[in-house]
Amino acid sequence: MIREQLFEQILKKKSYLCVGLDTDPKKLPEHLLDNEDPVFEFNRQIIEATADLCVAYKPNIAFYEAQGPKGWVSLEKTLQVIPEEVFTIADAKRGDIGNTSELYARAFFETMNFDSITVAPYMGADSVKPFLVQDGKWVILLALTSNPGSQDFQVLTLADGNEEYLFEQVLKTSSTWATAGQMMYVVGATQADYVERVRALVPEHFLLVPGVGAQGGSLEEISRLGMNQQCGLLVNSTRGIIYASSGRDFAKKAREEALKLQQEMEKYLEQYVQHL
Amino acid sequence: MIREQLFEQILKKKSYLCVGLDTDPKKLPEHLLDNEDPVFEFNRQIIEATADLCVAYKPNIAFYEAQGPKGWVSLEKTLQVIPEEVFTIADAKRGDIGNTSELYARAFFETMNFDSITVAPYMGADSVKPFLVQDGKWVILLALTSNPGSQDFQVLTLADGNEEYLFEQVLKTSSTWATAGQMMYVVGATQADYVERVRALVPEHFLLVPGVGAQGGSLEEISRLGMNQQCGLLVNSTRGIIYASSGRDFAKKAREEALKLQQEMEKYLEQYVQHL
Repeated sequence: MIREQLFEQILKKKSYLCVGLDTDPKKLPEHLLDNEDPVFEFNRQIIEATADLCVAYKPNIAFYEAQGPKGWVSLEKTLQVIPEEVFTIADAKRGDIGNTSELYARAFFETMNFDSITVAPYMGADSVKPFLVQDGKWVILLALTSNPGSQDFQVLTLADGNEEYLFEQVLKTSSTWATAGQMMYVVGATQADYVERVRALVPEHFLLVPGVGAQGGSLEEISRLGMNQQCGLLVNSTRGIIYASSGRDFAKKAREEALKLQQEMEKYLEQYVQHL
Repeated sequence: MIREQLFEQILKKKSYLCVGLDTDPKKLPEHLLDNEDPVFEFNRQIIEATADLCVAYKPNIAFYEAQGPKGWVSLEKTLQVIPEEVFTIADAKRGDIGNTSELYARAFFETMNFDSITVAPYMGADSVKPFLVQDGKWVILLALTSNPGSQDFQVLTLADGNEEYLFEQVLKTSSTWATAGQMMYVVGATQADYVERVRALVPEHFLLVPGVGAQGGSLEEISRLGMNQQCGLLVNSTRGIIYASSGRDFAKKAREEALKLQQEMEKYLEQYVQHL
């Protein structure tokens, strides 16, 4: 999906919500367990209940991989029921050299037809570039993550005289590898203090923002500080939506939670995107 | 496998060779293609031909994952034919937060019974610690990789007044998370200039060393600079061994190449490990 299509969808749905599909077989509502593929059935109902309120779905690949071969089948079936206009993110955090990254790119972009994949930056250019295969297929690079461990290395100060942080160098260097039409960045909602520094370096790029809700990030703050004139944000929520209820009403409750976020997002879009 | 068992095996085989099982279905000898599972059959014959000459096998997970569900089956079957005394490395370069890393740990350590997994450091402590589940299960953390892109971020100088590199901070910080009995580091053979700095920070830890052979690293140099009194090295070779021949004699040729490396390693062990 190209950038313009993503923005069109944001305008149409008045939403920049991404729903995380971190579907844990141990957390499924009991009444689904009789299904042939309970993980897929759960995802299918979540998607049906939320697809008009969100612009992206983000399965965390670990949850599927941990199930062995049948997990991959659930994942492939899930992708097939996501409406075509919705952006898809393989949250895989891959990163390996040349030919290995090419294999991952083929697996996620071709075999499974994801629009994007999350990639770790530590190994540098030749671990990221193989994913930049064509317009409409995106790399979402880890820049400043939402977890406590982000403090260990990402905000180390570099000896360049400008008090620059490691994540800033990651943004600077990597933004020369691709345009804002092929690259996005992960920037946690818990990192509001740094968002202005992020936007100073990558004003145009979309940011994928985890950490709203359970992890304590504020949707208002990240929207105010992080939005650009093409919205430029995909804000993810997982647990608050997909595990809103563990009963028979799980899909209905998921929709209610997604709707709350969409309505708040509609407000910020009107407030911060000028030509709306 | 605990550290002492690994060292015993090194002494017994007079080898610190790790054979990379990056088995590409497109590079298999033609006569194997009739097999029900050609990837597994290739691995099985490579293992049979080299298991007395090497102390570790390292399948790069991407090659299996790219095949979809049947790739995982080939991988699981491969693990079952690796002799129990040989160390196994899931070269997966994972790294994600808390519960997701736990899922990966379960998949690789329990479901597949690998001894170790390679992990990327960018997300910090809470992305690595979930893999440190018990003695004998290892994290092999990316520190200084062998690819050109390692220059992009890993050797950035930090503003701490000591002209310290990012990879040094990664070593310092992460070595407080676990002992040398649960953590190893990836240090490329192409990085000989930095090996003394690595050893100054982590004298005891095993280093997993890719980059000998095709990538241009010298076995003599990395052995001289990197060995400690428990050997402390696992040196990987992949293409030079498993693709030594593309004909019917592929396993025989693989053994010949592995033997050459083992014989060279025997010499360095005698030279640099004092109590041998």
